[in-house]
Amino acid sequence: MIEVEVKAKIESFEEIEEKLSQLGAVKTKKEFQEDIYFNSPIVDFAQTDEALRIRTTKEDEDTKIFITYKGPKIDKSSKTRKEIEMEIEDSEKCADIFKEIGFKQVRAVRKNRQYYAYENFEISLDDVEGLEPYMEIEIGLEDGEDYSKAQNKIFELFEKLGITEGFERTSYLELLENLYNI
Amino acid sequence: MIEVEVKAKIESFEEIEEKLSQLGAVKTKKEFQEDIYFNSPIVDFAQTDEALRIRTTKEDEDTKIFITYKGPKIDKSSKTRKEIEMEIEDSEKCADIFKEIGFKQVRAVRKNRQYYAYENFEISLDDVEGLEPYMEIEIGLEDGEDYSKAQNKIFELFEKLGITEGFERTSYLELLENLYNI
Repeated sequence: MIEVEVKAKIESFEEIEEKLSQLGAVKTKKEFQEDIYFNSPIVDFAQTDEALRIRTTKEDEDTKIFITYKGPKIDKSSKTRKEIEMEIEDSEKCADIFKEIGFKQVRAVRKNRQYYAYENFEISLDDVEGLEPYMEIEIGLEDGEDYSKAQNKIFELFEKLGITEGFERTSYLELLENLYNI
Repeated sequence: MIEVEVKAKIESFEEIEEKLSQLGAVKTKKEFQEDIYFNSPIVDFAQTDEALRIRTTKEDEDTKIFITYKGPKIDKSSKTRKEIEMEIEDSEKCADIFKEIGFKQVRAVRKNRQYYAYENFEISLDDVEGLEPYMEIEIGLEDGEDYSKAQNKIFELFEKLGITEGFERTSYLELLENLYNI
């Protein structure tokens, strides 16, 4: 699965929520997400532009846990990349396995994320602990599908929402690392 | 979780099944297990005596998938070792993630396993593709519990079943690799 995704810094959630609602985008789930990132013993994922994480999501009383691998970004303007995600039973056991096979736990990223659905876009308003407001727009592509069209559509949607700058390819993990220098 | 486990080659399943039933052991589930093993990019698990695998189990129509990590054996007579196992959603996605983070798929081990329960023992009769009949007796210990007592109890149970030789610390994976030289 190829994830075509563009992220932008925004002024305020309220303003964007109003525009999304005018556009007819539908508020879907709101969840708390905790991502624990791991680094590889053979390469530095910060250099290879990969990511391995355990994501725990909480929506009301419902907790789910996933392993996600993200490959290097494959173009210069968006965050398009290979993504493999699968649900798992337990985050502690998983962290324990990752450590036993040589991976190092680095940093956790915690956020409240409000999802919106609009056409075939998935829109996320992200209130990340320690960062200013951001939003992401994503389209999921099956392997082999053309991603540049999807990418253009995403930028068009940003424009409809009045966002023409503030685009950011740096992950929340790296933004936090740059800020807090750890 | 520490897994205290002893394996032995046996003459025939029928003979042991009869003895188990005389002893009052209870036949529990029978399942097909396929284990796909992976090797590490930083160490050779055959040398460090570790294992990382994806296990798919099939019991009637019920399929489950697990990641299992096994640490090095911690004594010379049994297969006592740290084991971490957690259920996952999908074996292909998992194999894909393992490969992306540098692990190499080695061999698959397939077997039909008949489980028996007796006191706090878990007994497995293993019909492994490509190998002669084996059985395993296992006791699960919480971290910190003494394993030598558990180990003695396991050897006593083997004796009750008439088995005093044929003990094997080598994994099915290695037995198959030795036989088929891959």
